[in-house]
Amino acid sequence: MHSEFDLITRFLAPASAGSEAGVELGVGDDCALLEPTPGERLAVSVDTSVADVHFPASAPPHAIGHRALAVSLSDLAAMGARARWCVMSLTLPEADGDWVADFADGFHALCRTTGVALTGGDVSRGELAVGVTVMGEVPPAMALTRAGARPGDCLAVTGFLGGGAGGLARWREGERDLATPLLRRYLLPQPRLVAGVALRGLASSAIDISDGLQADLGHLCQASGVGVVLSPDALPLAEGLVEALGEPGARQAALCGGDDYELLVTLPPACLEEAQRRLAAQGLPLTEIGRITAEPGMSGVEASTSPGWRHFPGEAP
Amino acid sequence: MHSEFDLITRFLAPASAGSEAGVELGVGDDCALLEPTPGERLAVSVDTSVADVHFPASAPPHAIGHRALAVSLSDLAAMGARARWCVMSLTLPEADGDWVADFADGFHALCRTTGVALTGGDVSRGELAVGVTVMGEVPPAMALTRAGARPGDCLAVTGFLGGGAGGLARWREGERDLATPLLRRYLLPQPRLVAGVALRGLASSAIDISDGLQADLGHLCQASGVGVVLSPDALPLAEGLVEALGEPGARQAALCGGDDYELLVTLPPACLEEAQRRLAAQGLPLTEIGRITAEPGMSGVEASTSPGWRHFPGEAP
Repeated sequence: MHSEFDLITRFLAPASAGSEAGVELGVGDDCALLEPTPGERLAVSVDTSVADVHFPASAPPHAIGHRALAVSLSDLAAMGARARWCVMSLTLPEADGDWVADFADGFHALCRTTGVALTGGDVSRGELAVGVTVMGEVPPAMALTRAGARPGDCLAVTGFLGGGAGGLARWREGERDLATPLLRRYLLPQPRLVAGVALRGLASSAIDISDGLQADLGHLCQASGVGVVLSPDALPLAEGLVEALGEPGARQAALCGGDDYELLVTLPPACLEEAQRRLAAQGLPLTEIGRITAEPGMSGVEASTSPGWRHFPGEAP
Repeated sequence: MHSEFDLITRFLAPASAGSEAGVELGVGDDCALLEPTPGERLAVSVDTSVADVHFPASAPPHAIGHRALAVSLSDLAAMGARARWCVMSLTLPEADGDWVADFADGFHALCRTTGVALTGGDVSRGELAVGVTVMGEVPPAMALTRAGARPGDCLAVTGFLGGGAGGLARWREGERDLATPLLRRYLLPQPRLVAGVALRGLASSAIDISDGLQADLGHLCQASGVGVVLSPDALPLAEGLVEALGEPGARQAALCGGDDYELLVTLPPACLEEAQRRLAAQGLPLTEIGRITAEPGMSGVEASTSPGWRHFPGEAP
């Protein structure tokens, strides 16, 4: 049994070292002290992942740590921001040192690969949940908001769709091998941070797909005051999705499934090829899946009965 | 029953208006975009308040909202930082619109009185808990860390002690009138932000009292590599505390009780009077309660059996 302080020290300590990343004071005082880049905007977002709402409580702890950070970082990616810092709040029902160590491994590993410094945290007793606030930076007027889509723009998506929903389906069937591509997509999503930065100056708007393509596309169109003609046949399907769900199920998962954490962007047609070239250099496809229209509304798909991934009332995974 | 999106819109909308406070883009996109003050350090802290661990689940919702923000802001106060922005993560078992509206009232009211802009949020289904990440600013080298106490410094505390523990005791006895001074101290603590800024350049170190005077003093001494002679008779007791707990109980509450959210600071003796003058201008006493020593350890009090407010294993209020 560990005290709150012991736990914090144990699982946050690895990241307080290494202050090259604009961290004047890391974990261990009342606040972290950070050094923002002069002239840049600070991009901030928070996401909380609750056990058996957003992820299975019995998932491997390192995947829970990775995933909780990844879904927050995905918001920075969608803004075209460079990820810099994060703080994390963990509530857990009991102080299980092995669980926390494995959780921290997954969290810290993603910190390292994305260049993010964990600069503070908080551990409480409670239902298993992880809240992560991420902070990034972006030069003024370079941020990719949801509001910039213009009629005539291409609609495009990074990577592949439906993997989140497909992975959840495989999990429910009892699959536990994280090497399974769909399970990896569901439990170990990769935030598209490098892609987001590469799309600065090309994309006119962006959002990350957390609630499902159709729902998030709706948010983007609403914020931009535009409509869209979607090409459902063009949706890039995740590896193994048709095998797992059948053709109609796969298309439905790509359209309405949540947890894909790909970027949905709009671009002037003249910018599409350059954007595809930049992302191909990262090994990431950028697929055109529709066209923005002046007239509001979404055509090309039937009105879905699924409103996307909603937590009230939510279905536990 | 409201969807996550409806709830967020309803309870966050009031704060997205009014962008005078360095908010280029508030609630409603993937991230908030903030404008840090050039040359200042960004102070960041997160605290999560869990129902029946940190506060009674049946407390008035507006008090829960106030308190969750207050405890995070208290960390900025202890750093001498000016509070600027916050993001909030709320998990709640059901989407009760009246509850959320009252909760939001309490949260927003404290935002207004402290000049903090709520710039983002996240609502999930789960056990009732509120995580608040606060961001503030402080000029380089002006931050009040825990590590600056020097032998010979005075130890002083703002306001009065024991009110948090006394209020919790009254709550357990069935008191529900928020006009009761002790209950106010427990459920509606006031973060000492103005005091923290006023102590810049005078205090050599600071910490806020969340885990109890003795526990937090221990943290400060450890970070500074010093010891302390405490004057227990000098502790300023909260109004109504002796009546509620008796003399020995009151002294114990002041020494070991949590949730006071006063500032514990050290100052060179020559600075004490000026610090008291500045805080008196805010109507806040600053009481000398001990002296920092070169020799580690805490004298003046018996070794306490209470290690302060710990959440593992924690006692529910």
